[in-house]
Amino acid sequence: MVDAVKIREVGPRDGFQNEPERIATDDKVRLIEMLAATGLRRLEVTSFVRADVIPQLADADEVLRRVRIPEEVSVSVLVPNERGLDGALGHRDKIDEINVFLSASESHNRHNVNRSVAESLAGLETVLGRATAEGLRCEGVISTSFGCPYEGDVDPARVFEIGARLAAAGAVEVGFGDTTGMANPVQVREFFGRAQEKLPGVELTAHFHNTRGQGLANVLAALEAGCDSFESSFGELGGCPVPPGATGNIATEDLVSMLHEMGIETGIDLDALLAAAREAQSVLGRSLGSHTIVAGAVDHRPRAVPFGPLGTKRNS
Amino acid sequence: MVDAVKIREVGPRDGFQNEPERIATDDKVRLIEMLAATGLRRLEVTSFVRADVIPQLADADEVLRRVRIPEEVSVSVLVPNERGLDGALGHRDKIDEINVFLSASESHNRHNVNRSVAESLAGLETVLGRATAEGLRCEGVISTSFGCPYEGDVDPARVFEIGARLAAAGAVEVGFGDTTGMANPVQVREFFGRAQEKLPGVELTAHFHNTRGQGLANVLAALEAGCDSFESSFGELGGCPVPPGATGNIATEDLVSMLHEMGIETGIDLDALLAAAREAQSVLGRSLGSHTIVAGAVDHRPRAVPFGPLGTKRNS
Repeated sequence: MVDAVKIREVGPRDGFQNEPERIATDDKVRLIEMLAATGLRRLEVTSFVRADVIPQLADADEVLRRVRIPEEVSVSVLVPNERGLDGALGHRDKIDEINVFLSASESHNRHNVNRSVAESLAGLETVLGRATAEGLRCEGVISTSFGCPYEGDVDPARVFEIGARLAAAGAVEVGFGDTTGMANPVQVREFFGRAQEKLPGVELTAHFHNTRGQGLANVLAALEAGCDSFESSFGELGGCPVPPGATGNIATEDLVSMLHEMGIETGIDLDALLAAAREAQSVLGRSLGSHTIVAGAVDHRPRAVPFGPLGTKRNS
Repeated sequence: MVDAVKIREVGPRDGFQNEPERIATDDKVRLIEMLAATGLRRLEVTSFVRADVIPQLADADEVLRRVRIPEEVSVSVLVPNERGLDGALGHRDKIDEINVFLSASESHNRHNVNRSVAESLAGLETVLGRATAEGLRCEGVISTSFGCPYEGDVDPARVFEIGARLAAAGAVEVGFGDTTGMANPVQVREFFGRAQEKLPGVELTAHFHNTRGQGLANVLAALEAGCDSFESSFGELGGCPVPPGATGNIATEDLVSMLHEMGIETGIDLDALLAAAREAQSVLGRSLGSHTIVAGAVDHRPRAVPFGPLGTKRNS
């Protein structure tokens, strides 16, 4: 298994976007800066989307103008189309990467962006070409990679074909989203094994949801298949939970806790990350779904009486 | 990996015991009978403990007298000592198994049962001897097998030594409890590999908690190490959550959902199990922590428009 992984924190985009109320820009800036100081290396900060469709992210310009993020953190924004890219390019000094997205399944893509998959692909190819020419690193994320809530099973061959198209257009990284938590560890292991063959030289990223509690089991399966890049959200925020009330994204702090316990390096200070998640909890005024936010990091230190002898064997 | 696993549902004991209010006996009987009709094969029904210490289970006699459970379900009760065994033997016609328990670490055992580990072992050896003589199948559960909240790391050699003592005294099954969710998948895989060498011929059972969200990842690791026996609690009830508010036991329905998705057989009808968990939710008047109770089983069936063509390559 790998001894270090890359984690992209997507909470400030994916999480904040899914809140019913728009979070105050001051709070966003403070939370983003807390995250950026945890040692994480990739941070999706916001998205350039239509303010009338996603008012929660209407302050993307102001957020990007104000946040101070250490040089070593790779900052990305999600862009849905060329207009989004134009918005992002207005902050070229602050942004290192863009993330584009579409779904593998027609009905999910139609519900999400009101286009066919072919139309999305054609549009994103243009976005990726322009972004690459501007020197931006590009990731393409494929939603419903492991199953679709409308169409059931999704053929991995179709997902890899879309991934190859995104890579050919300029994406150096392709992310696979388990949008409604349909993936299982057997499927994940096989999927990432095949993905490495089908998309050689492309960085492959797993974006799991914890919809049925199996998010970290899928992470383990992906690790076993050689995947070393993950996306997650602090406080378990966001992820467009389906059905409503379900869990969406895996919590970054639960992911980091498990990886560190397994001896896998992330660069992240778990206590600093927990402080950021607790601050988000305080800003939002409700308990978040993350587990480690309640339990804290595992404490291995001996703190009480030592182990005693087991005594005499009575039956043997 | 194994193609079938055994699951012991512990909710009616471990779950009901940890509720702040005692659940009405009528409700217990109904929930136990719903569980017993799901196809599960092992069911821990109650415990014979002191009513002044654990009033939640003071109706153990009445519950056992009243429940009607299909012959093919192996019914167990938890017994802490000889007095508990006497209580259980009053229902010899209803009971197939007993579960006894102690902790691997001195401070946890002292906190839990006010005895040293040596004293507990000596007492349980007598209980196991008597129960075996009565024809009862016996499981010994070792709490804090993967770490102790007071003493930090726990040496697996000590856990296996305790397991060997329990086995020598009559336990045909030894369960390993991750009492406060300190286990990680690397540790679990190594642990079960070694346990099989150290305890040949003994059935080895994993009892994980989801304290840091990693419960099902630990299940996956245990499966990979050849473990095929698990304990869990419907609705994610119980498990003495540490710290308060944390998650305890893994939810049986989340476990079953993952296993079925992986093609591993459990004998359990997931929809019937979800109905029992939802009935518990209704009895307790609050949302339970299980994920699948919200999300439902994964639906693989195609239900909408078919996949369309991806269109022409624009960049390649």
